[in-house]
Amino acid sequence: MKDIYPSRHAAMAEFSPRLDPVVHSEWNEAAPIGAQQAEQFERDGYLVLEDMFSDEEVAFLQAEAGKLLADPAALEAETVITEPGSREVRSIFAIHAQSRVLARLAADERLAGVARFLLGDEVYIHQSRLNYKPGFQGREFYWHSDFETWHVEDGMPRMRALSMSVLLAENTPHNGPLMLIPGSHRAFLTCVGATPEDHYRTSLKKQEYGVPDEDSLAELAHRHGIVAPTGKPGSVVIFDCNVMHGSNGNITPFPRANAFLVYNAVSNRLAAPFGVERPRPEFVATRGEPRAIAPISGLLLEEAPA
Amino acid sequence: MKDIYPSRHAAMAEFSPRLDPVVHSEWNEAAPIGAQQAEQFERDGYLVLEDMFSDEEVAFLQAEAGKLLADPAALEAETVITEPGSREVRSIFAIHAQSRVLARLAADERLAGVARFLLGDEVYIHQSRLNYKPGFQGREFYWHSDFETWHVEDGMPRMRALSMSVLLAENTPHNGPLMLIPGSHRAFLTCVGATPEDHYRTSLKKQEYGVPDEDSLAELAHRHGIVAPTGKPGSVVIFDCNVMHGSNGNITPFPRANAFLVYNAVSNRLAAPFGVERPRPEFVATRGEPRAIAPISGLLLEEAPA
Repeated sequence: MKDIYPSRHAAMAEFSPRLDPVVHSEWNEAAPIGAQQAEQFERDGYLVLEDMFSDEEVAFLQAEAGKLLADPAALEAETVITEPGSREVRSIFAIHAQSRVLARLAADERLAGVARFLLGDEVYIHQSRLNYKPGFQGREFYWHSDFETWHVEDGMPRMRALSMSVLLAENTPHNGPLMLIPGSHRAFLTCVGATPEDHYRTSLKKQEYGVPDEDSLAELAHRHGIVAPTGKPGSVVIFDCNVMHGSNGNITPFPRANAFLVYNAVSNRLAAPFGVERPRPEFVATRGEPRAIAPISGLLLEEAPA
Repeated sequence: MKDIYPSRHAAMAEFSPRLDPVVHSEWNEAAPIGAQQAEQFERDGYLVLEDMFSDEEVAFLQAEAGKLLADPAALEAETVITEPGSREVRSIFAIHAQSRVLARLAADERLAGVARFLLGDEVYIHQSRLNYKPGFQGREFYWHSDFETWHVEDGMPRMRALSMSVLLAENTPHNGPLMLIPGSHRAFLTCVGATPEDHYRTSLKKQEYGVPDEDSLAELAHRHGIVAPTGKPGSVVIFDCNVMHGSNGNITPFPRANAFLVYNAVSNRLAAPFGVERPRPEFVATRGEPRAIAPISGLLLEEAPA
């Protein structure tokens, strides 16, 4: 398959044009979001949907997250990522495959329906995780475009995927919220340097390859600014696969927790990776025949049927 | 001298009462700040004075800061503090003693006059520094009360000192601004554990002793909340010596820079340290007979007279 977004080849970083739409459907009255929301996603590369889940649903999700965090030994060992230099859990991957509640969340019409509209296709879960940035010592995530990694290391061919962060704790300006550079999704910023094999083992803790250069980041931030959407538990932050984002650390006592779901268009299923020999494992990047999600409507207050 | 604020002695942290006023003068019409501002400082332990210095004065101060940062070899070596694991300059201490421009800033009536009013006495510079949190990789400063350290390690007897941060770059919510717990200055939180000798050598990079415990911090933050004053260059953030504060890291491209001046009441000059044998060196804590500042009025656009 031709690589239309080559990265980590050249000695200098560059911005190359985005060759894919951002919103892959024509908006109409039946769309699950408003016309202005679709326009905002197209323009800024992100969108916040406030109060998508009720307090009762949030409590149900928080309880499930608490169960998973309390007993990491019950999970596939490789899916549990700890803070660098600590045993504190930072992320649990493949939550849709390890928890019926979170599988139900991923299939929820309020999320999957919006993903199907924005991506203009049936969708499946490319990656899912529970992120937990503990209070006092949560570390930063440096700037990155998800697509750059998913393309080079996983073989995602085109920009036709998006992430949804379902907030399970309040995002304040102070507890290391997600920061985005709105508009940065409209160009592809290549990264410098080759990728070592099995890079994912360290990159899930701390990224060292596929890292944008400082000059380009400064250019983007000066041109577009930086936003850090705040919101209450139950709100959802949706962002395009190519928007530049990251987060500062968190010394406050307030942990930050979210359930993180990456939807990919079924037509955009993974090919062989474009920059490494061996693809990353299944728990960070779903491979093979995609299982399209059948959206489920109704309140999220019980487990999905088996 | 009797130690009325013992810390780092007991095995458990505790809140003990503050035995000193916060505002040490009676407000009257001649005061350099308004009655409401004085009340706010009393209640919250901090105050933001916006646009205290004109754009032209800010440019003058920025140019001086740039000169100092560009040629650290010209400064006393021990006053230059680098980021942990890096040669990037994080702070330069004793700037009032090493730069005539910054000595002039410290004596400026707009700062020294407010310090004299709030402390109800003549004042001198206990400590000064230029803080520079570089973009992309600025690290956090963990929570602390300055007074706890100044008392235990420097021998400052009473709570009759304050800090002024003169912003030289914009403080945004995203570039690791100073965070404060308003109201936390009204009790003294003791820290646990003894202090090794010459602790200052590492503590200026990363604090390990005199660190508040997580339970007490959580209690303070839940009770009082957290604020992070933002502001343009030329604004001044004033805060009490005992207010709990810290800052997150900074992955944004926007550096954070400020000139930091600690004013102490002449009547509150340092005694022997209350928790260590050997006091910290002169460049972090001015000892001996205090030289009271004679406030200078007028625009800050040239060096102080020799």
